[in-house]
Amino acid sequence: MAQPPIRIAIAGALGRMGRQMVEAVQADPRLALAARFHRPDSVGDGLVSRDEALAMADVVIDFTTPAASADLARVSANRGGPALVIGSTGFDAAELADIADAAKTVPIVRSGSFSLGLNMLVGLVEQAARAFAPEDWDAEIFEAHHRHKIDAPSGTALMLGQAVAGGRGAELDAVARRVRDGVTGARPAGEIGFAVVRGGSIVGEHSVSFCAEGELVTLSHAAGDRIMFARGAIAAALWVSGRPPGEYDMRDVLGFDR
Amino acid sequence: MAQPPIRIAIAGALGRMGRQMVEAVQADPRLALAARFHRPDSVGDGLVSRDEALAMADVVIDFTTPAASADLARVSANRGGPALVIGSTGFDAAELADIADAAKTVPIVRSGSFSLGLNMLVGLVEQAARAFAPEDWDAEIFEAHHRHKIDAPSGTALMLGQAVAGGRGAELDAVARRVRDGVTGARPAGEIGFAVVRGGSIVGEHSVSFCAEGELVTLSHAAGDRIMFARGAIAAALWVSGRPPGEYDMRDVLGFDR
Amino acid sequence: MAQPPIRIAIAGALGRMGRQMVEAVQADPRLALAARFHRPDSVGDGLVSRDEALAMADVVIDFTTPAASADLARVSANRGGPALVIGSTGFDAAELADIADAAKTVPIVRSGSFSLGLNMLVGLVEQAARAFAPEDWDAEIFEAHHRHKIDAPSGTALMLGQAVAGGRGAELDAVARRVRDGVTGARPAGEIGFAVVRGGSIVGEHSVSFCAEGELVTLSHAAGDRIMFARGAIAAALWVSGRPPGEYDMRDVLGFDR
Amino acid sequence: MAQPPIRIAIAGALGRMGRQMVEAVQADPRLALAARFHRPDSVGDGLVSRDEALAMADVVIDFTTPAASADLARVSANRGGPALVIGSTGFDAAELADIADAAKTVPIVRSGSFSLGLNMLVGLVEQAARAFAPEDWDAEIFEAHHRHKIDAPSGTALMLGQAVAGGRGAELDAVARRVRDGVTGARPAGEIGFAVVRGGSIVGEHSVSFCAEGELVTLSHAAGDRIMFARGAIAAALWVSGRPPGEYDMRDVLGFDR
Repeated sequence: MAQPPIRIAIAGALGRMGRQMVEAVQADPRLALAARFHRPDSVGDGLVSRDEALAMADVVIDFTTPAASADLARVSANRGGPALVIGSTGFDAAELADIADAAKTVPIVRSGSFSLGLNMLVGLVEQAARAFAPEDWDAEIFEAHHRHKIDAPSGTALMLGQAVAGGRGAELDAVARRVRDGVTGARPAGEIGFAVVRGGSIVGEHSVSFCAEGELVTLSHAAGDRIMFARGAIAAALWVSGRPPGEYDMRDVLGFDR
Repeated sequence: MAQPPIRIAIAGALGRMGRQMVEAVQADPRLALAARFHRPDSVGDGLVSRDEALAMADVVIDFTTPAASADLARVSANRGGPALVIGSTGFDAAELADIADAAKTVPIVRSGSFSLGLNMLVGLVEQAARAFAPEDWDAEIFEAHHRHKIDAPSGTALMLGQAVAGGRGAELDAVARRVRDGVTGARPAGEIGFAVVRGGSIVGEHSVSFCAEGELVTLSHAAGDRIMFARGAIAAALWVSGRPPGEYDMRDVLGFDR
Repeated sequence: MAQPPIRIAIAGALGRMGRQMVEAVQADPRLALAARFHRPDSVGDGLVSRDEALAMADVVIDFTTPAASADLARVSANRGGPALVIGSTGFDAAELADIADAAKTVPIVRSGSFSLGLNMLVGLVEQAARAFAPEDWDAEIFEAHHRHKIDAPSGTALMLGQAVAGGRGAELDAVARRVRDGVTGARPAGEIGFAVVRGGSIVGEHSVSFCAEGELVTLSHAAGDRIMFARGAIAAALWVSGRPPGEYDMRDVLGFDR
Repeated sequence: MAQPPIRIAIAGALGRMGRQMVEAVQADPRLALAARFHRPDSVGDGLVSRDEALAMADVVIDFTTPAASADLARVSANRGGPALVIGSTGFDAAELADIADAAKTVPIVRSGSFSLGLNMLVGLVEQAARAFAPEDWDAEIFEAHHRHKIDAPSGTALMLGQAVAGGRGAELDAVARRVRDGVTGARPAGEIGFAVVRGGSIVGEHSVSFCAEGELVTLSHAAGDRIMFARGAIAAALWVSGRPPGEYDMRDVLGFDR
């Protein structure tokens, strides 16, 4: 017999990400859209109050603000559920403490990016970096973004650099080679290089190459549109429903060892 | 204090791979070239007999023939060592049984390919395939080889297909899509596609792409020259020295869970 | 002194492509949106009649239907202008003859695809194919599209195959290798290979590789969204304004020799 | 009836490139190895004197030193042939003047790199750059080389940058963006970006991407081994035989307009 669908409530249901989540949940037969709420007490137009929503759901998916998410975590913990999938970003220390506290009572998946692909890439890169000896395998990180991006390397490229460094037990700052220009000398072993492309409307491409004498392993990700975040949030909701209390991230959802 | 170097004996030391192994071992400060032998009893020109070689080594690296390797395994097990790294290919069932038997007494790493990069690729692909739901992530395998290759897809491409299928709990034969031509209809979920390029002197390129709505993860390997096999054999020798008895492969050397 | 902007009329202004062209023309300082018309005589809501539009424009951009475009060409030729940029597809022989006839009087750029990038790719591929001896340079065509595409290879991949064959003075049908599976034998010189990937939401990628002993040249295109067609139509409008009568295509706009 | 083979003399026949040229000429049925010489007067071991070699050949292929090549050019011009293919590098002004002078009497192809693929890439890039408006198409140059390379970007990458700048009528120095790090601001139109990777034993990869809103054209080259230079020299010899006097380069051999 098929599982009954997991009941999802969407927080911030009138926001851009909230609306996209509503559509994605409605399209997924494993899920039932149980409730939509925007602010705790705004109702009407199909919206219910936060309290009503919590009562109707197995999992709340929340892409709102740090304050709203921390508040939601406290309220959910106080009433013993439901589970939470939190995609807000920019938390301060107090808000993070609130969420950690709530995670003693309810299971919470929190991530700064719900792209399954990017999280997979980070996990695989760290794993490869653990096994590939730095003296043999030169790690190089490449990223390309649209012409409007104003900083370099991208935050995701730096996160990939940290995954390499972490897998090697090194500090990224000590080994990062952010630019190469002019007479650079031969490449030192252990260095982590960055190369940056900016042009057109490229949404976001990242790759990490491990280059040895006579062979090359490249792990890469290309982003298209924001639908990837909704898919990742749904995967997190399916995964977190029925888990023991705890604070999890997408690496857990993807099954990486911790 | 630095470890004393691991003492290596090279079997088949006059063969192409044997000679390359001799050079690679001599160039590696973590290893000492303890002995070279070719056939069990051919001596002279720096060669010793097999028995002498076994007595002088912590690990024997053996790229010879199935019969010679199976024999070596028996002999090594009988005398309680040394450990073995076996890269011969084409074993029959009896020879494989001999090696499995010997592995109850001595640790043996055996692999059909000692490329660290390719083995890493296979391991990462299987891991990604376990986490990426087939209904969302279309798996496509691409390979390119030189114009002289007479079969398609390459054996490695098929091995990658099995890694995807294995990670998904599927049978490759049931889901492989080896060619697409004409009116194919929409791509069914779960299919594993193959695309083949032949041209010039391409040594060997393989990639596996997982393609979802709005994002793409690609894991790839490019081979240059045979030095990659020597590096892998050395990594295996370093890893196997001092291990408990057992039959291992490169996935173990790379630290993948079994 | 700056040129006065070229006056553009948009045919089929209520269609999807028509609306996109209106926006693109309005955003371009080198152009002035002189008139919008939909059917010859539908007016109101800012639309004028076709006759009025023709009187107000230097160039008409027309993404409509074969019949409407052929009719437009006749009418424009009869009144001695304006120039035309025609992106309709699916013309029959009579309609093509009408357009060829009109092109004796007015300059017309007609193309099945206004992507500047793809047209550039086709032109460069043909040029490379003219210079690269087929016995040395193996040509391989790769394409990737989303999971909903129902045929393979893509029409554009076949067009690229024809560009290679044309550059070599060969017939594509005689040398195309559309699939490789099983024991294929060594690759014959002169063959043009195709490799196909289907997955996710890939909008469209095409590449042509020329593979020789020891080196490889790859020319590729990746499509993102339909805005590329509007940019190409604008480039055609800027190019065709003030040209002598004649039927042109995007290769002319891009400056390739004929 | 088949053409009689073109008679080739190899200068510097005992050098690395000379020996490779001897092999390549012997393997090519369109060519006959007419003579090998090393220094003007060293004979024996199959070598003849320079004067004898010139008398026996339609084309001399010369990868030697600037002084020897300039001398060869003078001598060949004085006696009215044969044609020359010159691959020496590092000429001073006087030597270049000698060669230019000789080219009034004999046809000479001279190039700093005989890779057909790289020369094709440079030619196609310049052509694309002429047609792609810089305000729409961002040009980005990527190169990857082995870990031993001590400068960046590679000379070839800079040459590709000059091809883009030349095609646009710009000065590379004025528009090159050699590194991006930190807060860079949005990418200015017209900029030519460089991205550099160093790792492993990568022989040499170069690509130029033209990135527009919604589409991307990438032209790339990958080098494997030096055999590519021999193939290019042979193509030059076949092309130059029977040409009118003049100084040519590989762009002429490949049929690009000047």
